[in-house]
Amino acid sequence: MRQRQMRMEAVLEQLLPAPELAPQRLHQAMRYAALGGGKRVRPLLAYAAGELGGAPVERVETVAAAVELIHVYSLVHDDLPCMDDDDLRRGKPTCHVQFDEATALLVGDSLQSLAFQLVAERTIAHSAALQLELVRMLALAAGSRGMAGGQAIDLDSVGKSLTQTELEFMHMHKTGALIRAAVLLGAHCGDGLEAEHLDAINHYAKCVGLAFQVVDDILDVEASTATLGKTAGKDAENNKPTYVSILGLSDARNLAQELHQNALSALTGFGDKARRLVQLADFIVRRQS
Amino acid sequence: MRQRQMRMEAVLEQLLPAPELAPQRLHQAMRYAALGGGKRVRPLLAYAAGELGGAPVERVETVAAAVELIHVYSLVHDDLPCMDDDDLRRGKPTCHVQFDEATALLVGDSLQSLAFQLVAERTIAHSAALQLELVRMLALAAGSRGMAGGQAIDLDSVGKSLTQTELEFMHMHKTGALIRAAVLLGAHCGDGLEAEHLDAINHYAKCVGLAFQVVDDILDVEASTATLGKTAGKDAENNKPTYVSILGLSDARNLAQELHQNALSALTGFGDKARRLVQLADFIVRRQS
Repeated sequence: MRQRQMRMEAVLEQLLPAPELAPQRLHQAMRYAALGGGKRVRPLLAYAAGELGGAPVERVETVAAAVELIHVYSLVHDDLPCMDDDDLRRGKPTCHVQFDEATALLVGDSLQSLAFQLVAERTIAHSAALQLELVRMLALAAGSRGMAGGQAIDLDSVGKSLTQTELEFMHMHKTGALIRAAVLLGAHCGDGLEAEHLDAINHYAKCVGLAFQVVDDILDVEASTATLGKTAGKDAENNKPTYVSILGLSDARNLAQELHQNALSALTGFGDKARRLVQLADFIVRRQS
Repeated sequence: MRQRQMRMEAVLEQLLPAPELAPQRLHQAMRYAALGGGKRVRPLLAYAAGELGGAPVERVETVAAAVELIHVYSLVHDDLPCMDDDDLRRGKPTCHVQFDEATALLVGDSLQSLAFQLVAERTIAHSAALQLELVRMLALAAGSRGMAGGQAIDLDSVGKSLTQTELEFMHMHKTGALIRAAVLLGAHCGDGLEAEHLDAINHYAKCVGLAFQVVDDILDVEASTATLGKTAGKDAENNKPTYVSILGLSDARNLAQELHQNALSALTGFGDKARRLVQLADFIVRRQS
């Protein structure tokens, strides 16, 4: 896993515009935001799903990088003063603190464009028609019916008491959509999977995406800022509904276990080929940061 | 021209997520920003170039809408307090004034995703491979080596005295890149154009894009806020270098005329098929708002 995280870093390093290229400050800020940190959960999921689908590694690397760039753009915008107003991310000052707000805004905007540039210009599927379908999946996952929509629901829910169903709806968009895209795009880079396989992978991705968020909510309460690399206790401080605030710590832990089990069940038909996806589900639920 | 502006409005109306679709506030804000105003210069250019290239109108409508959505997203982000901090756009309160800053941020982000969704899911070229190339062109035009990069250069140039070459470099990115994309994407929706034709169209687009900006700078000095539908005199107020501040009003007018002539010269080989592109060059240079 460590090896693949390092490989992803090298790929991003190479795909991002060089720091000496004009406009330099913007390119330096894009690299600052995207390089040197992060668990790279989405790329790891894409790699593992690609392995399951028998996909060539160059294709998977491109979709892994594109999904990660979309994720990084969302973090940069999410940290801005008008959103979560956070100073710390991946153990470093956030982009708008290190540079300035206007630059951070453009960093996010440019990273999104770069993600779509990559999936359009590098081969990621066995046909151009399928590749267009994958570009569309990434756009849907990122947009108002996916991740950005989830952020909007999150904004609207501050200070409200949500039901568990409403909270789930929010997270299926806010983090779930892009995690599913990472898994499905990775799998589609190969061409060995049939519809029922893709259904099973989709179900795995849904469970893992939700488990990721439940664990995030637990860590926000339990872990320290130093361990997380971002400010701990922000949810309670911001009066945000979380799985912990709705279910309590103990039931939130049970839910994470349940989702973990469901994720693994979805993979049983694949045997050893799904080994990496199994490991990642374990990692996502057991992580400490 | 009026008819096509209305048609573009109808197309956008239909392609934007419905206002009653969740998350409703975000979708309402996206529609607020994108509908009911604007000269639709980029869509008009795409239509006209599509006509020259013998392109089916449904294809051209998709690229026209996608380019316009990228443009609208850039306006929404550009108006934010951390950028130009403007209250008025297209004669209405800006998106962050009408809604709030966080929503305006997500509106821009979502409009960008929607643009790429459209060019991936609807047919815009005679082959999927060419369509991927067009998606890439749009991404390049929008990103850090295109429009967003131009914004970054703009930010860096506040309070500085630029040379005319530096100013041109900024505008070739900030407004030029997307205007060129509108023209080239429109032309590529057909398949009747050869490399030399595309070169000529590209040259037209460069001249028209730059002329557009020169006229913008002139209008910022000469026109009233009421006529512009956005705050007049902002450039001087913000201490921004413009063609007027660098060349003076009279030479700026001469430059606009010169670019106008160059744009028209590029089209001479096309005869009557380029009629609409000629009209648009006239419109861009002679407009009063």
